[in-house]
Amino acid sequence: MRAAVVAKSEFRVAELATPVPGRGQVLINVSRCGICGSDLHARVHADEMADLAAATGYGHFMRSEHEVVLGHEFSGEIVEYGPGCRKRWRAGTPVVALPIVRQGRQPHAVGLSRSAPGAYAEQVVVQESMTLPIPNGLSAEHAALTEPMAVAWHAVRKGRVGKGQTAFVIGCGPIGLAVITMLKAAGVRTVVASDLSPRRRQLAEVCGADVVVDPAAESPWTATPKPPRLGGAEDLLNLAFDTMEKLRRVPNLPWWYLFRIGHTLNATPAGPVIFECVGVPGILDQIVAAAPLLSRVVVVGVCMEPDRFRPALAINKEIELRFALGYDPGEFRDTLHMIADGKVDPAPLITGTVGLDGIPNAFAALSNPEVHAKILIDPASAVAAP
Amino acid sequence: MRAAVVAKSEFRVAELATPVPGRGQVLINVSRCGICGSDLHARVHADEMADLAAATGYGHFMRSEHEVVLGHEFSGEIVEYGPGCRKRWRAGTPVVALPIVRQGRQPHAVGLSRSAPGAYAEQVVVQESMTLPIPNGLSAEHAALTEPMAVAWHAVRKGRVGKGQTAFVIGCGPIGLAVITMLKAAGVRTVVASDLSPRRRQLAEVCGADVVVDPAAESPWTATPKPPRLGGAEDLLNLAFDTMEKLRRVPNLPWWYLFRIGHTLNATPAGPVIFECVGVPGILDQIVAAAPLLSRVVVVGVCMEPDRFRPALAINKEIELRFALGYDPGEFRDTLHMIADGKVDPAPLITGTVGLDGIPNAFAALSNPEVHAKILIDPASAVAAP
Repeated sequence: MRAAVVAKSEFRVAELATPVPGRGQVLINVSRCGICGSDLHARVHADEMADLAAATGYGHFMRSEHEVVLGHEFSGEIVEYGPGCRKRWRAGTPVVALPIVRQGRQPHAVGLSRSAPGAYAEQVVVQESMTLPIPNGLSAEHAALTEPMAVAWHAVRKGRVGKGQTAFVIGCGPIGLAVITMLKAAGVRTVVASDLSPRRRQLAEVCGADVVVDPAAESPWTATPKPPRLGGAEDLLNLAFDTMEKLRRVPNLPWWYLFRIGHTLNATPAGPVIFECVGVPGILDQIVAAAPLLSRVVVVGVCMEPDRFRPALAINKEIELRFALGYDPGEFRDTLHMIADGKVDPAPLITGTVGLDGIPNAFAALSNPEVHAKILIDPASAVAAP
Repeated sequence: MRAAVVAKSEFRVAELATPVPGRGQVLINVSRCGICGSDLHARVHADEMADLAAATGYGHFMRSEHEVVLGHEFSGEIVEYGPGCRKRWRAGTPVVALPIVRQGRQPHAVGLSRSAPGAYAEQVVVQESMTLPIPNGLSAEHAALTEPMAVAWHAVRKGRVGKGQTAFVIGCGPIGLAVITMLKAAGVRTVVASDLSPRRRQLAEVCGADVVVDPAAESPWTATPKPPRLGGAEDLLNLAFDTMEKLRRVPNLPWWYLFRIGHTLNATPAGPVIFECVGVPGILDQIVAAAPLLSRVVVVGVCMEPDRFRPALAINKEIELRFALGYDPGEFRDTLHMIADGKVDPAPLITGTVGLDGIPNAFAALSNPEVHAKILIDPASAVAAP
């Protein structure tokens, strides 16, 4: 099969042996594979990523000297099964799969390890138990977006955003755009999106953001239709005083009720939920410094460098930082069905398609936010530039 | 009245005019007032704290050139009421109060602002709506611990620790010890405490910690009676594979059930809850680097300096950082009653008592963790050293 192989940051398209599905695994023909920000990063910083993965318990991440086939956001069609499979779907059935396989008890990240070649190729091996048939005749293009949209769905679920709470999305790259899409699908009424790039702001609007802000010209924090209830510490204290004093005037209130109500003082006026989708050093400190009291920050952007921030500011505002990674199989499945059922439209994210030979051009193009968001690879295509 | 006044880091005991309670306020005689870590910090770093308070919305925090009466952890007795009070308690009634007052709509932090003198004094003004009678004949000594114990109770509530989850308390100063006490009161079965000081470790044991660790000799993370379910990323992935494969073998399971169950994969094996009660630069990064996957960290220790950490590690482990400050009136009231009902014993924290003239010695003594935890001030006492 033809595949794009990366080694020492350089791509070459090569003729590789067709991979053989192991126990419980399936070989699929790749229909489309998205280019992920992690792929851009892994091409040049594989060793840092491998060290990090090893530090958190996965020792087989790709290294810069390895020859690796990237690609973990894919759709495809069933070709053949390895031993021990249930063989539920016949050949040609369109499927997506979570990009993880295992050999014995050793799990591997498909497309980010030389032990599990990815889908920048005509064919890829996946785990049968992690494979899902594509429903409703959904296109291969849109189905390939299941993986990045599932990342966003996991982040939105982790954020526990109430429909009436304001959500801020800082950074409108592919993941920020996916988060906006998923927040609107979840019924969140006010989504404020912020990005320095006019093109990205335009895409944020198409994805459903209610307010779109250029942070160089205007603060996202004051751009909401309804301003936050708590401007600062004094507002919170006054809310406590007002509640306690009002309650004391109500006749016949059992004395303990006063204090039970007191419990809600800190909890009720929940701050907004902020999705950090930039992932560069300094952005968390900026957000903590500017965010309203009691904000919850879901950190989706991956900042690989050590970062500096002021814990005392976070304490004084009672900020919560929830770091998010990946998704679980249920979230992946729900995302596929939300797309297939038309509840979520991934189309605005897709800005181009190339063949295997077009990958270097696509990687170069993705460094400019003014042009592309998500570029898909079609292994059957000869298109050399997105 | 006699009061200890601090200005430019120096204490002097002075004869001040008796404060006059304003609208909705009460004058109380101070029975006991605890010395808080914030007081130690405010004596020498008031300006940094004032800048921080101003940045988060409170503009009247003390500055180093101000003359201030510190003291916000106190118990006392009703003396007289200002205008507009309900006057529910007669003179001499023992009370505690949240250390906040307001003048018109302007709230003030009692004992941390020159606008609201604190309880390092014979008398202090509090807000009637924030005042609670001390029940059950509880001693003034123990009632004075309501405030710091409420800080711990708020942190424990913010941590949402399940009784079967392991709680780690890193740092066993007064707040760490209070957190241990409150975790045990909340029924958490396994509390692991860690401190470099032998004296603090001994106090942690008295407060109820189940496992006490010297982090210089032994890792707190492996000292638990039952090891964490997830050693690393591969364990989490294997859990996903095992669940998905097991479910596929169950006959007659509706197909969607498989994926609903999948939802629990990330959620169920909750990591431990870690209480950071040290508050020095670097400790958060250490905790993130060493903590098990999916840990929740409640940050109670106040690190005033900028700090450095690695967001990518926190992302790969899906760590949650919840920064905690203070308490709400309901938590303060519950804490008082937990102490008065004998559910919580603050006695181990109290290691000494001094009079107003003994405050400089007490501040000096508190710099050594081997001797004292919480020192109380008794304005009627002549004791000059703790």
